[in-house]
Amino acid sequence: MTTFTNSHKVRIEWGDCDPAGIIFYPHYFEIFDACTSALFERALGMSKLQLLKAFDFAGFPLARTRARFLKPTRFGDDVTVETTIKFGRASFETEHRLSLDGELCVEGWETRVWVKRDGVTGRFVSEPVPDAVRAKFK
Amino acid sequence: MTTFTNSHKVRIEWGDCDPAGIIFYPHYFEIFDACTSALFERALGMSKLQLLKAFDFAGFPLARTRARFLKPTRFGDDVTVETTIKFGRASFETEHRLSLDGELCVEGWETRVWVKRDGVTGRFVSEPVPDAVRAKFK
Amino acid sequence: MTTFTNSHKVRIEWGDCDPAGIIFYPHYFEIFDACTSALFERALGMSKLQLLKAFDFAGFPLARTRARFLKPTRFGDDVTVETTIKFGRASFETEHRLSLDGELCVEGWETRVWVKRDGVTGRFVSEPVPDAVRAKFK
Amino acid sequence: MTTFTNSHKVRIEWGDCDPAGIIFYPHYFEIFDACTSALFERALGMSKLQLLKAFDFAGFPLARTRARFLKPTRFGDDVTVETTIKFGRASFETEHRLSLDGELCVEGWETRVWVKRDGVTGRFVSEPVPDAVRAKFK
Repeated sequence: MTTFTNSHKVRIEWGDCDPAGIIFYPHYFEIFDACTSALFERALGMSKLQLLKAFDFAGFPLARTRARFLKPTRFGDDVTVETTIKFGRASFETEHRLSLDGELCVEGWETRVWVKRDGVTGRFVSEPVPDAVRAKFK
Repeated sequence: MTTFTNSHKVRIEWGDCDPAGIIFYPHYFEIFDACTSALFERALGMSKLQLLKAFDFAGFPLARTRARFLKPTRFGDDVTVETTIKFGRASFETEHRLSLDGELCVEGWETRVWVKRDGVTGRFVSEPVPDAVRAKFK
Repeated sequence: MTTFTNSHKVRIEWGDCDPAGIIFYPHYFEIFDACTSALFERALGMSKLQLLKAFDFAGFPLARTRARFLKPTRFGDDVTVETTIKFGRASFETEHRLSLDGELCVEGWETRVWVKRDGVTGRFVSEPVPDAVRAKFK
Repeated sequence: MTTFTNSHKVRIEWGDCDPAGIIFYPHYFEIFDACTSALFERALGMSKLQLLKAFDFAGFPLARTRARFLKPTRFGDDVTVETTIKFGRASFETEHRLSLDGELCVEGWETRVWVKRDGVTGRFVSEPVPDAVRAKFK
């Protein structure tokens, strides 16, 4: 297992918030997804679109996720997300720590699987994470 | 030009609403998009997934849209959308009338183009709406 | 602890899906949130808007959530979500089992806290779930 | 009528895109909404949350909007939005020009109304845009 970290800044917008005036929590998962993409982009120096072409795979859908919510955020908040990744063989785990002014607000964890689309059935099948990808996270 | 109408019921959810307690307006366009799909599904008796396969096209992206907002809606509201379609040669226009308890709240209009993906460039190119599609809306 | 179950049907829409052609997973949490509201609406016979007024509270934000994804869903899928609730003193837990044609696709769990807005600080403070609410789930 | 312009950079994310691989168009309206907030923030030097408190109003919901879509954008695109505002008495109009690498992709227009919540009915009622707000856009 190797570890790699990226930091990403996100503005919580009016449209992310619900009638209680705080972020509607599913949007945290959109943020986490963007942070996972940003992590790959920084490590590999290519966007997700370029990544999908370069490695001929279909993406890294989720197997599992969980989150805990410690402190609400609201529109106008500029939050920072520290994302860490650990690779398994055909999967990887990310941890996202979202904080505001240095105070931890949300922690999220994802387990994602590296998949390819089966040529015959069109279904996703898991594949080892390419060594060329893995090497960039060292 | 031919005309065809479909009626669709939608629940406005908590997560669709913003800190003012009313629907965050971009969600109306998500509703309109779903209503356009529902209209095709009812006319052709196939889902959008089946439609894309049956007619070998890439979708009907928007060229233009506009909307006017007469009365806000909020979470828990069960709204009704009446959608009308008129076909041009390689495009079509939809009109969506969203109402609550018989009172008109929003009107939206879309102009969409029937497109195919160019085999060489991968870009969308417009195509005549197939007669077999058009015939189902009569 | 008491248990109560509700069943809710949801259509996965084109706009819920990502470039891999499957649902973008944060939308599952929007579905779960709507299912939790639907559960309360069925048990209490009032919408969330009426509920917030009737019991003078500020909602039930999440403390924790987790989900596991077994099988992807895609646009046009009509999925069924079975939601179960168990009450603690000032919190409750929901379990959502989302299936397509009888096959389980996603399981999600939420821990939510019953909160009131503090009159002075404006912050959320947890409160016991009212007995009048709890009684309706028996 | 006075004019004022702000420029805002936005990353189009994977989760903003649909199965055709391009942005799902309702997300453009979320971007426009964020750009309108960003414009006020830059002109007044306060976030929307601070703005709502400072001027004791309920927001600026839409009366009308329209957009035209010239060229699709996709995940990984870093687009620039130039937003212009013109004030009427109790309303204002914004124009958003979204471009990628200098090429115009989408144009959007909004008409918004400055509203206050009526103390008795709780409904939104339009109000003149305060002179102190207007003055900041000169």
